Amino acid sequence: MSAATAPRQLREVGLAEVRAISRGAAVLGTGGGGDPHIGALMAAAAIRAYGPVALTPLAELPDDAVVLPVAMMGAPTVMVEKIPSADQVGRAVEALTRHLGLGVTHVACIEAGGVNSLVPVAAAAELGLPLVDGDGMGRAFPELQQVLLTLTGVRATPMSVVDEKGNCAVLDTVDNRWAERLARSVTIDMGCSAMISNYAMDGAAARRGLVPGTLSLAASLGDLLEPGAAGDDPAAAVAEHLGGRVLARAKVIDVERRTTTGFARGTAVLEGSGCDVGRTLTIDFQNENLLVRDRPADRDDDGERVIATAPDLICLLDTATGAAITTEQLRFGHRVSVIVAPCDPRWRSPEGLALAGPSAFGYPDDAVLLEGVSA
Amino acid sequence: MSAATAPRQLREVGLAEVRAISRGAAVLGTGGGGDPHIGALMAAAAIRAYGPVALTPLAELPDDAVVLPVAMMGAPTVMVEKIPSADQVGRAVEALTRHLGLGVTHVACIEAGGVNSLVPVAAAAELGLPLVDGDGMGRAFPELQQVLLTLTGVRATPMSVVDEKGNCAVLDTVDNRWAERLARSVTIDMGCSAMISNYAMDGAAARRGLVPGTLSLAASLGDLLEPGAAGDDPAAAVAEHLGGRVLARAKVIDVERRTTTGFARGTAVLEGSGCDVGRTLTIDFQNENLLVRDRPADRDDDGERVIATAPDLICLLDTATGAAITTEQLRFGHRVSVIVAPCDPRWRSPEGLALAGPSAFGYPDDAVLLEGVSA
Repeated sequence: MSAATAPRQLREVGLAEVRAISRGAAVLGTGGGGDPHIGALMAAAAIRAYGPVALTPLAELPDDAVVLPVAMMGAPTVMVEKIPSADQVGRAVEALTRHLGLGVTHVACIEAGGVNSLVPVAAAAELGLPLVDGDGMGRAFPELQQVLLTLTGVRATPMSVVDEKGNCAVLDTVDNRWAERLARSVTIDMGCSAMISNYAMDGAAARRGLVPGTLSLAASLGDLLEPGAAGDDPAAAVAEHLGGRVLARAKVIDVERRTTTGFARGTAVLEGSGCDVGRTLTIDFQNENLLVRDRPADRDDDGERVIATAPDLICLLDTATGAAITTEQLRFGHRVSVIVAPCDPRWRSPEGLALAGPSAFGYPDDAVLLEGVSA
Repeated sequence: MSAATAPRQLREVGLAEVRAISRGAAVLGTGGGGDPHIGALMAAAAIRAYGPVALTPLAELPDDAVVLPVAMMGAPTVMVEKIPSADQVGRAVEALTRHLGLGVTHVACIEAGGVNSLVPVAAAAELGLPLVDGDGMGRAFPELQQVLLTLTGVRATPMSVVDEKGNCAVLDTVDNRWAERLARSVTIDMGCSAMISNYAMDGAAARRGLVPGTLSLAASLGDLLEPGAAGDDPAAAVAEHLGGRVLARAKVIDVERRTTTGFARGTAVLEGSGCDVGRTLTIDFQNENLLVRDRPADRDDDGERVIATAPDLICLLDTATGAAITTEQLRFGHRVSVIVAPCDPRWRSPEGLALAGPSAFGYPDDAVLLEGVSA
């Protein structure tokens, strides 16, 4: 890893860091997670109004810190058109802290990939609180129980869900899957985009259950994607920075997509230099990229092989610029580099795979994870 | 009105009163409201465990009373099979009082028709609190904003929604329609049957916004329906007791029903002595009976006339016994007496009609209400 790409430990998020995090969070979004641009707009507006946000390394969180994650929930396509109102973040936090009867000391991210890397920056600026440098996944996942916190026993609820009109729900559920179920319905009623606060925890629980340093990581990825910063192969530089590898250089030759139960599901077919003659790569996605298959070009299943799966990070980057391409942007003719990078090692446990491996998304395939990586 | 049918002012609800209220509430349910039998089972079990419930006349409520209605929400068909758990009522009340930071002094009914006439009896017994003799409608309606309290400015929220598994939502919405919308989705997720507590109010607001004496009324209707109590024409006695009239004696010759968006919608066609030769009556229902039309038997619309509509009470009673027939029980061959009785006069205001008249249910027809009644 070159000096230019060494992760920097951010101590503060200002306007420049917002831009960098936005670019890096798109990579960590692995095709989904919502457009970070919306989060960047919100964070920049809040920083202009209230000043930069102090970032607290996870390891420095005191045991008795009261950590409150905030996030947007909903359909990425809607989030882009229905920007949260100015007071919506504050109301989500206020509803939950009132219910808990606790004062918050730190804001946190549930999801480092996509829009939810920066929504908490806006929240922290508005609330005048420090933000934790870490998140609940180290990437993006579609459902709210899909966080390492579920594995370490932190409850998603009590949680608040608020819309831009002034409606609010405070949920208290028997498990984190029920939190997802009720919050999803309420979010759909609210117009498919809502602000949430959940997984309230103390500092000790945050240190146990969050992935450290992911905002710094997103910012360093963003720096790497500055024009010229990573030479003529930015995708390779990103893969190296994440401890992963480039799986293929290819051209998108087909994208089939359908929107069902609030998710953008589909398959992209790629053909190119990373594939043997007469074979293609297909990427199955459900908001995020979940499964890469190597298969004969005639789509006969004979000889099909799964070569990468969630919870590892499967990212499609523009081969020329290294910019992350979301599953919604993906279209015929795109020249992409497919990279795979290791997830947080806790996702690789049996419990982690049950929560966010292929079976969690309804695929019959076993997880195929990068080997020999130091995560 | 004979002495035997004079409304008695109940002061206590014991097991005998539960049976009477159950029969009477089925009449006030106007075809819907959920099966009072489930409420009767819950109330009887609670009374056996905790003793009878004191009933407070609405006029005697002190201004500073803290009145908390409780009810079941959901699909009547599901409620019959998924009886609430023993602690579910208590959790609904506890969630809301904790949120409000208030101690409750009285339990109340939102809906005198159907199951929700007796669910609050069970709640009051369990909580050891008196119950208000009154309700929010004077009948049954399908949606939770359809109460006189909406007209008198009482907010449905904060409200709690709890299921038998231990899940709970506390909602706070911008208006009572939004409360219906969010609570409906949460209830559907919870399995189409949930316990709710909402419309918390002080005694002064309860006196302004509730219909007085409706539990006593239900009990006196129930007494009237005891075998032999009302002579050989119990339907006429019920109509007289409610200040209404018998619209027709007829036989059900067709029932068309469909279940859409959680409601039992349909039309019943009746033929009989209350209709002119060559003409029929049709009853349009959406859970409750909403519209009575007099029309040529060949169903040509020429000469069709709407002769009664919600918010007046349209009840179908078994001609022989006077027992109320729900829209779900209605079938070919039923000999029924169609009675219409005046709603609470506040429902007849322009605001009341907008909230619970034909237009509120999507009918283009104007409301047709009983004339010359002293409501």
